[in-house]
Amino acid sequence: MAGPLPRSPLAPERFPDMPAVPGVRVAAGACGIAGGDRRDVALIELADASAVAGVFTRSLTAGAPVTWCRQALAATGGTGRAFLVNSGKANAFTGRGGDAAVRREAAALAERLGCSPEAVLVASTGVVGQPLPVDRIVDALGPLVDGLTGDGWEAAADAIRTTDTFPKGSCATAEIDGTRVTLAGIAKGSGMIAPDMGTMLAFLTTDANLPAATLDRLLREANASSFNCITVDGDTSTSDTALLAATGRADTPAPDDPADPRLADFRRALGEVTRDLAQQIARDGEGAEKFVTIRVTGAEHDEAARRIGLAIANSPLVKTAVAGGDPNWGRIVMAVGKAGEWADRDRLAIWMGGHQLAREGVGVPGLDEGPAAAHMAGREIELAVDVGVGGGAATVWTCDLTDRYIAINADYRS
Amino acid sequence: MAGPLPRSPLAPERFPDMPAVPGVRVAAGACGIAGGDRRDVALIELADASAVAGVFTRSLTAGAPVTWCRQALAATGGTGRAFLVNSGKANAFTGRGGDAAVRREAAALAERLGCSPEAVLVASTGVVGQPLPVDRIVDALGPLVDGLTGDGWEAAADAIRTTDTFPKGSCATAEIDGTRVTLAGIAKGSGMIAPDMGTMLAFLTTDANLPAATLDRLLREANASSFNCITVDGDTSTSDTALLAATGRADTPAPDDPADPRLADFRRALGEVTRDLAQQIARDGEGAEKFVTIRVTGAEHDEAARRIGLAIANSPLVKTAVAGGDPNWGRIVMAVGKAGEWADRDRLAIWMGGHQLAREGVGVPGLDEGPAAAHMAGREIELAVDVGVGGGAATVWTCDLTDRYIAINADYRS
Repeated sequence: MAGPLPRSPLAPERFPDMPAVPGVRVAAGACGIAGGDRRDVALIELADASAVAGVFTRSLTAGAPVTWCRQALAATGGTGRAFLVNSGKANAFTGRGGDAAVRREAAALAERLGCSPEAVLVASTGVVGQPLPVDRIVDALGPLVDGLTGDGWEAAADAIRTTDTFPKGSCATAEIDGTRVTLAGIAKGSGMIAPDMGTMLAFLTTDANLPAATLDRLLREANASSFNCITVDGDTSTSDTALLAATGRADTPAPDDPADPRLADFRRALGEVTRDLAQQIARDGEGAEKFVTIRVTGAEHDEAARRIGLAIANSPLVKTAVAGGDPNWGRIVMAVGKAGEWADRDRLAIWMGGHQLAREGVGVPGLDEGPAAAHMAGREIELAVDVGVGGGAATVWTCDLTDRYIAINADYRS
Repeated sequence: MAGPLPRSPLAPERFPDMPAVPGVRVAAGACGIAGGDRRDVALIELADASAVAGVFTRSLTAGAPVTWCRQALAATGGTGRAFLVNSGKANAFTGRGGDAAVRREAAALAERLGCSPEAVLVASTGVVGQPLPVDRIVDALGPLVDGLTGDGWEAAADAIRTTDTFPKGSCATAEIDGTRVTLAGIAKGSGMIAPDMGTMLAFLTTDANLPAATLDRLLREANASSFNCITVDGDTSTSDTALLAATGRADTPAPDDPADPRLADFRRALGEVTRDLAQQIARDGEGAEKFVTIRVTGAEHDEAARRIGLAIANSPLVKTAVAGGDPNWGRIVMAVGKAGEWADRDRLAIWMGGHQLAREGVGVPGLDEGPAAAHMAGREIELAVDVGVGGGAATVWTCDLTDRYIAINADYRS
C-alpha cells in the first residue's frame, strides 16, 4: 500500500469524547498482521452475563468469523464476554483453516477470561483469501487483557481501520424508566469491500439491562435505518458485522417486550448512534468528495422507499453526476425505474437542495437550474424524490463517485 | 458536449460489409435534433406483412416509445412496416406530451407508407426529460422515404449513435430447410444510459418467412444470451429496445413450433448476430480499455449462472481491478457472495486467462501470480468461476471501469 490515504474532506473535526460504559473495558495493540507497527487488534471486554445481539452480512460466501458469531450467539442464547477484532487480514475465503483459526483465538481468549469459547465474538477485516496468522493474535492477548481500560475507544477505533481515513466513534445517553444509561460504539468501513480490504464492522455497548431477545430486536430495528441505508459502491463484504452488548450494570428494568414504552428513549439513542456511525462510514467512502442524503417519499411502503433510495445511491451515473456538480435529474428517473418498485412515471417529483426540478413526470417548465446547480456544487448534497404512489418513506446516505475511487481501487493493493 | 469521444481501443477494425436483406430498405438523415449536421434519424422499411418481435427495458419508468411499441405489437399481433429511430433526445420522462409525439410521428409515416400507425415501431435515444421536437422528424420523412435503399446500414448505424464511438452492425446467413436466408442488424449502446443519453437499441431484419409467435420466441432466446448478458455500469435505460423483423421474402417453410429442427441453423445465426452486436456494445463501454468475458459454471441452473456473472461484471471493485491489471480474485469471491445465488464457499474455483488462482475455496498454495498478472495486463480479459453446486453455466461480457468513465459522466452534458 502506497502510504496512508489523506483524511476524507467529509470527516468530522475530531473523534468524540467517549464516556466509559459501566461493565465495558477496551484495549488495542499491534501484533504485526497489518504491517509495521500499525495498531491492528482490538479487544472489548464485557461484564459477565452481558446480553449480546448481532447482525451480519447477507453474503453467501461469508467469512469464518461471521459463521462463528452466528453459531456462538445461537449456542449461548445471546450472551458474551468479549469482542475480539483484527485488521490486516479478513480471514474470509480461507477454507476450513479459517474456521480453525477462529476457534483457536476464541479458545485462547476464553481461557484468559474464564468463559466459554462461544462467549468470545470474533471479527476480522483486511485482505481476503490469505490465512490469518492467528498465533500473533494469541500472543497479543496477554498485553491486551493487561491494558484493558474504560477509555480505550479511540485506540480501538484506530486498530480496526483498513482504508478508513479516520477512526469512527459515537455515543449517547438515554433514560430507561428514569435511570440514565450510556451507549458507546465504534465502527469501520470505507468501501463495502475496499482495496482488497474493507468491510463494515460496528461494535456497540451499553450498560442498560436488557434481555437478549429485546436487544436483538432493537439492534435489527436500528440497523434497518442506519447501516442498511448506506452504500459506497454497492459491493457486499464477506465480513460485515454489527454487534451490540448490554452489560446490565445500570439498575434498569429489563423489558421482555421490545415495544415497551419505557424503551422509547433508548431506542432513540441507539438510532442516533447507529445513524451517526453509518453516516461516518459514507463520509469516508473511498475517494468521496461529497456526502449525499437521499430522501424518498410516496413509495408503496418503507422498504420499497429504501430500495428505491439505494438504487439511486448505487447508480454510477447518479454518483458521477453528483461528483460533477450536475443537477441531472434524468439519471435519478433512470435509477427509480431500475429499482423494481412501484412508481408512477407521471407523478414523479424531484428536488435538489430543496429546489424542485421535476413534477408530474416532467421537468418544471422554464426552470432556472441555477439554484440547484449551486447546491450541487457544494459538499453536502440533498436529493429528494417522491414517486407518487403511497406513504412509504426512507432516507439513505452515500457519497459521490470520483476518479480517486478508481485510482484507489485500480492501483492500490497491499 | 465537448467534441467527439475517441474511437474505443476495443472497436472492430471497420464496419462489416452488410448485405441487402430482401424486403428491407434503409435510410438515414439529419433533422437537427442531435445538433449541427449530425445524422440523427434512421428509417428501416419492411415489406408488407412482415412479422415483428420485440423485447424491451424492464424499467418501470420506460419512455413513451417503449410504451408505444408494446401496445402496437399487441394490437397488430406482431406485424410491422417500419422502424423509425432518432438520436439526440430520448422522449423519456416527457409526460403525456411524449406519448402524443410518438403517435404523431407514427401517424405521419404510416400515411406515407399506406399502413396503420401501429405498423410503425418507434425508438428514441438521447437526452432524457426534454420534449421531442417531433415536427423535425415529420419534416424529414419525405427525404428519408425517397432515400430508402438496400445498403443504407452503415449510415443508419451512424444515425442512431449517442456516445457510441463507432457504428455497430452485424450480419449472417443461415439455411432453413435448404433455403438460404440473410440476417442483418444494427445496434447502439455505450453506457446503459450515458452522458444524459445512452440506451441499448437493436434493429434486426431477415428475409426468412416466420410466424410472429415463432419470431418472438427466437428473439427472446437470443436476447437471453446476448443483450441480457452484457453490462457496462449496471444502469438500466428507460428506452432499451430490440426489434426483429422477418419479411418472408425467402421461400422457406414457416414453422409454428419454435423447436422445429429446421430452425436450428437460423437460431445459430441469430445467436451469432445478437451476440456480436452485444459484444460490440460492451467493447464501446464508456471509457473502456479492456473487454472482459466472464464464464460461470457449476451454478444451480443457467439463470443463476447468469446472475452470478452479472454480479461479477457489475462490481465496481472487480471492474477497477481489471482496469488496474490486478489478478485480484478476492473481489470475485465477494461478487459471487452478493449475487444471492447458491454457491459453495469451500468448492469455489477461479481462473484468469486459463490460469487457476483458487480452488476448493482457498488460493492455490504457492501460486506464481505472474502468468495471471500478465494476462490481466492485456486488452482481452477472460475470467472463469466455478461455484461448485450444479450444472448451470452462462457467459457474460463487460468492460473495465476507468477514470475516463468518471470523466465522461461527471463532466459531459449536452
